[in-house]
Amino acid sequence: MVDRFAQTVLERCDQLAPCSEVPGQITRTFLRDPMREVHRLVRGWMEQAGMQVRLDAVGNLIGTYPAATPDAPKLMIGSHLDTVPDAGRYDGPLGVLLGIALVERLAGRRLGFALEVVGFSEEEGVRFKVPFLGSRALAGSFDPELLELTDERGVSVAQAIRAYGLEPAEIPHAAVQGNYLGYLEFHIEQGPVLEAERLPLGLVEAIVGQNRLELEFTGKAAHAGTTPMPLRRDALAGAAQFVTDVEYLARQTPGLVATVGQMAVEPGAGNVIPGLVRLSLDVRHAQDEVRLDALERLRNIAQRIAQERGLAVAFTPKLEQPAVPMDGHLQSLLAAAMRDRGYSPYKLQSGAGHDAMILAGRMPSAMLFLRSPGGISHNPQEAVLPEDVEAALEVGLRFLERLDSSLGGK
Amino acid sequence: MVDRFAQTVLERCDQLAPCSEVPGQITRTFLRDPMREVHRLVRGWMEQAGMQVRLDAVGNLIGTYPAATPDAPKLMIGSHLDTVPDAGRYDGPLGVLLGIALVERLAGRRLGFALEVVGFSEEEGVRFKVPFLGSRALAGSFDPELLELTDERGVSVAQAIRAYGLEPAEIPHAAVQGNYLGYLEFHIEQGPVLEAERLPLGLVEAIVGQNRLELEFTGKAAHAGTTPMPLRRDALAGAAQFVTDVEYLARQTPGLVATVGQMAVEPGAGNVIPGLVRLSLDVRHAQDEVRLDALERLRNIAQRIAQERGLAVAFTPKLEQPAVPMDGHLQSLLAAAMRDRGYSPYKLQSGAGHDAMILAGRMPSAMLFLRSPGGISHNPQEAVLPEDVEAALEVGLRFLERLDSSLGGK
Repeated sequence: MVDRFAQTVLERCDQLAPCSEVPGQITRTFLRDPMREVHRLVRGWMEQAGMQVRLDAVGNLIGTYPAATPDAPKLMIGSHLDTVPDAGRYDGPLGVLLGIALVERLAGRRLGFALEVVGFSEEEGVRFKVPFLGSRALAGSFDPELLELTDERGVSVAQAIRAYGLEPAEIPHAAVQGNYLGYLEFHIEQGPVLEAERLPLGLVEAIVGQNRLELEFTGKAAHAGTTPMPLRRDALAGAAQFVTDVEYLARQTPGLVATVGQMAVEPGAGNVIPGLVRLSLDVRHAQDEVRLDALERLRNIAQRIAQERGLAVAFTPKLEQPAVPMDGHLQSLLAAAMRDRGYSPYKLQSGAGHDAMILAGRMPSAMLFLRSPGGISHNPQEAVLPEDVEAALEVGLRFLERLDSSLGGK
Repeated sequence: MVDRFAQTVLERCDQLAPCSEVPGQITRTFLRDPMREVHRLVRGWMEQAGMQVRLDAVGNLIGTYPAATPDAPKLMIGSHLDTVPDAGRYDGPLGVLLGIALVERLAGRRLGFALEVVGFSEEEGVRFKVPFLGSRALAGSFDPELLELTDERGVSVAQAIRAYGLEPAEIPHAAVQGNYLGYLEFHIEQGPVLEAERLPLGLVEAIVGQNRLELEFTGKAAHAGTTPMPLRRDALAGAAQFVTDVEYLARQTPGLVATVGQMAVEPGAGNVIPGLVRLSLDVRHAQDEVRLDALERLRNIAQRIAQERGLAVAFTPKLEQPAVPMDGHLQSLLAAAMRDRGYSPYKLQSGAGHDAMILAGRMPSAMLFLRSPGGISHNPQEAVLPEDVEAALEVGLRFLERLDSSLGGK
């Protein structure tokens, strides 16, 4: 049995789950109606824990737990309340509810800094195809042009905000002011690493940088029966060689992940040699130079394959995002807190983007990952182990104490 | 400039081209209306050449040019008059029109055998998804169950035959009777071999045997960012390795062609590791034991790949067709005729099926391929060189003379 704080966190994840745009699944996008009930529930738990609660202009729900002194700095703890379509119940909400649970564990004890627990309104980028609308506003990096994005029904971000009863013109005032010690985000790993290592928690060193591109190999479609092997210009044979080389390079390069997730073959008949193959390439690494070097090698490999086979190859960049390292000082404090509580301060990288990536542009930021059973995420089967939630709370509380001591508090 | 016989053959190909179900392209399927005009034109040319013409119960148009004596044996020369959708103008009709031109070149001279020039009603299998309806009837291998096949509008083979004014119950009488010296089919190569060899004509040794199957590799879909390389079960990485091995084995095995023409990847998102890949495999060779051995090796390779990668692999056979060797004696006569006329008797295999494959079950059969510029076929760009048509006529005439001599004729 885990303690009542961890149990409460899990029960609250269950309570938020039915707030969904699609009955029977968890689908909760930016400021659509189901978010109102989420805000009502989370606000209630925040107030119960002794926090003052406000909703900013972009729909972030912020609970403030005061410091021992009025002009003390602040620590922000948060994650997001929106979800992907047909989501699990932990990706996002767990980080918000752990923040509230930490305030509850303080049981009224004041620290040398105030705590702000934030439930971001938008992280997944589902409704408007652009992620991090919530954290951008808080970090002061919300580009006003984002207000003009429209969803699949033609509703703009600005209209969605107004329909929720908020005022888009106020978004610039949502940017945080004053002295922040940093931002801490608890999140499920969404991958299999901690489970494979049999560890409940992991310390995020960096959020990986990422390139996405599309490759197109063009050869010549021809009759599969009448065209001898040496006379073929088979676009799929070239693409297959490339996929094999992508995997090989990634396996040889520590920390690199590289994936071909899409492949379309034309004309696509069993008795016709493929004349054209279009495929996606996704390359990620915590160090930008490693990622860019790998990308360059893969381009060269594709070009060499094409040349050797009489194919043409074209590259279309789709996304380029640099890596975001997490703050060293906050990492040391978290590592110390993990050791204090008997957990190995295992370091890993985040292969997916998170609000911490955005907040890192404004303040020192850190992330603590909780083990994902089966590595499953963005799926109703997403899970978290109760004992890992308890471990996260213990480490989190110890982290607050160590941060407090580092300020000269008792 | 080529001679007037070759020119006439090409002009007649042009005249048949507009007989199409789809204006602006050549699409002519089993006994649909445009075939009536084809029959009217071809019948006219046959009669003009001194042949007696009849239409059999399955819609084959047969012109008979009598021998010097009434009870002489017969030689059949033919090909098909139907086409694939959006076809070229030579695949099929060229073989029929060359047969008529040979009769014209005889200019009334009688041989020790009669000539039957046949335009088969159906070879491509477009309308009823089963090919060779015409040649099966002539060869006596038309299964009455074929009459129940229906096209996409629900019309059966029997109904299509009746709508054309023919009687399906008469099909058994379409089977050839009496003494046939053999069947000769002229056809464009539909591949790039003769062009690569800079040869106008090629002698077909065998029509390849063929296996088609579907393979399914199943791994585990997972997040492309958060799943390190060693923890992946990437169905596409496995499938790509297989495609590379298919090509390698085929390149190592003389005469083997092996093709993956279709590949579908699921879930098919750029940031998701593929969990399932479905692909087609097409394996052909002129010798059955080579083909079956290659197939067995490829199954073992797929299984080994799956095992090494923690994938599952499943095989679904779709088609198995043994190789059909062409007749040795007719091949020798054709080779001698080619040498007589100054052409190298280059031997090759047919990677595609032809009416000769069906006739071979009833009588000695042989095929002569004409070079396909660019290797292009089943495409409006399909072509044939006028000088190659002239070469085919010269070799064909010399073949008739040699066959005649071999019977003890002058």
